[in-house]
Amino acid sequence: MRNIRIDLMFDGTAYHGFQRQKNGITVQECIETAIQKVTGSFSAVTGCSRTDAGVHALSYTANFKSETRIPAERIPAALNHSLPRDIRIVSACDADISFNARKSAAEKTYLYRITTGRVENVFLRGYSWFRPKLPHADKMHGAALHFLGCQDFRAFMASGSPVKSTVRDIREISVTRENDEINILVTANGFLYNMVRIIAGTLVYVGEGKIHPDDIPEIIKSGDRRRAGITAPPQGLFLKKVVY
Amino acid sequence: MRNIRIDLMFDGTAYHGFQRQKNGITVQECIETAIQKVTGSFSAVTGCSRTDAGVHALSYTANFKSETRIPAERIPAALNHSLPRDIRIVSACDADISFNARKSAAEKTYLYRITTGRVENVFLRGYSWFRPKLPHADKMHGAALHFLGCQDFRAFMASGSPVKSTVRDIREISVTRENDEINILVTANGFLYNMVRIIAGTLVYVGEGKIHPDDIPEIIKSGDRRRAGITAPPQGLFLKKVVY
Repeated sequence: MRNIRIDLMFDGTAYHGFQRQKNGITVQECIETAIQKVTGSFSAVTGCSRTDAGVHALSYTANFKSETRIPAERIPAALNHSLPRDIRIVSACDADISFNARKSAAEKTYLYRITTGRVENVFLRGYSWFRPKLPHADKMHGAALHFLGCQDFRAFMASGSPVKSTVRDIREISVTRENDEINILVTANGFLYNMVRIIAGTLVYVGEGKIHPDDIPEIIKSGDRRRAGITAPPQGLFLKKVVY
Repeated sequence: MRNIRIDLMFDGTAYHGFQRQKNGITVQECIETAIQKVTGSFSAVTGCSRTDAGVHALSYTANFKSETRIPAERIPAALNHSLPRDIRIVSACDADISFNARKSAAEKTYLYRITTGRVENVFLRGYSWFRPKLPHADKMHGAALHFLGCQDFRAFMASGSPVKSTVRDIREISVTRENDEINILVTANGFLYNMVRIIAGTLVYVGEGKIHPDDIPEIIKSGDRRRAGITAPPQGLFLKKVVY
């Protein structure tokens, strides 16, 4: 049995997230259908992360077990032929049988894109969160640094998520601005459900003057979801990198 | 009577071009509907250029006559409130009564975007033309320079277009490349129907080795549409700038 690793990108606009669901089409389902067409038999696909409806991936890793004899280097073209154009397999290789795209992930980087300005850029409406006024945008980076390190991020998790530990290690975080576009980059060993979107919503509140940067440590410490900012919408979120 | 100039941007994906048509929704129609809602009476909108279905505009100019008393600076927000999110009015001002967005245009710049590489970028599929192999991409800029100047571009016009003169003055043209993205920028006093898309298709044929750069002058001279390259698809085309 082979364990095939695939690296892909997808535009999440049309999907109910990566993971197979009863209601609505998912990326996983599209890939499993393509694999079945190409190899002739069903393989369950394991993805590196559950992504929400509308969230995008610049680089996403998955794996599946198969008896197919198709050489790994031919798999991307074969699958892409059967996949919709908003999902593209970029590369494939034979991985160790123990490799699991989700469990083996050591670190992930997410990008959250925000756009400000008088008028929304029509070309970014599905790929960014538009906030017309961010008078304190210059304070967002400093505020973000409070998230660094191994901390309990319970306040930055969608309530009711079933997890054992809410401690995660944020290893890098930055807020950069170029004209009307603001990018938040966050790297951690793992993320709680909606964690990046709640961090983004909280940093936008800092930019809007609704939360003071110095209040972030206390909000984290409180463990209280209601004290953090809103959950930023999914279309601004991109999985950017997974490290194994 | 006021003559109001509006500058806008639109994502053309969902539209059958700018100009009002019997079949299919157009940008003009959306703007006229919004003006009627906002001012209470119908005004015909004159656009700077007919754009084809699926073509985009980074900057497009239009004008309409109206008795409305809404100050010009409030018109963008008022119209945007009634417009779909893929059309945004960026600014408005009172123009001289003689101003006509189409007839007064002195110069227009179009951008044509091409993407190459092994796998298509999912985020550019509606905003670029994907050509996997362009081994001679470095020859495209030199080939493009043959289009410069006041010439008869009959060979670069969709056949059967009803125009008096097929002479146009291309004042600037360039092909630049950054990694897998190739941009063609063309500035002229005016364009024939499909002219930029046929130039783009011809330059892609140069990049693919199907047309030799030195053959361009002869193809222009021939006036024969069949000797030029294919008409590049609409989703790679953007109206970038109009000068009055």
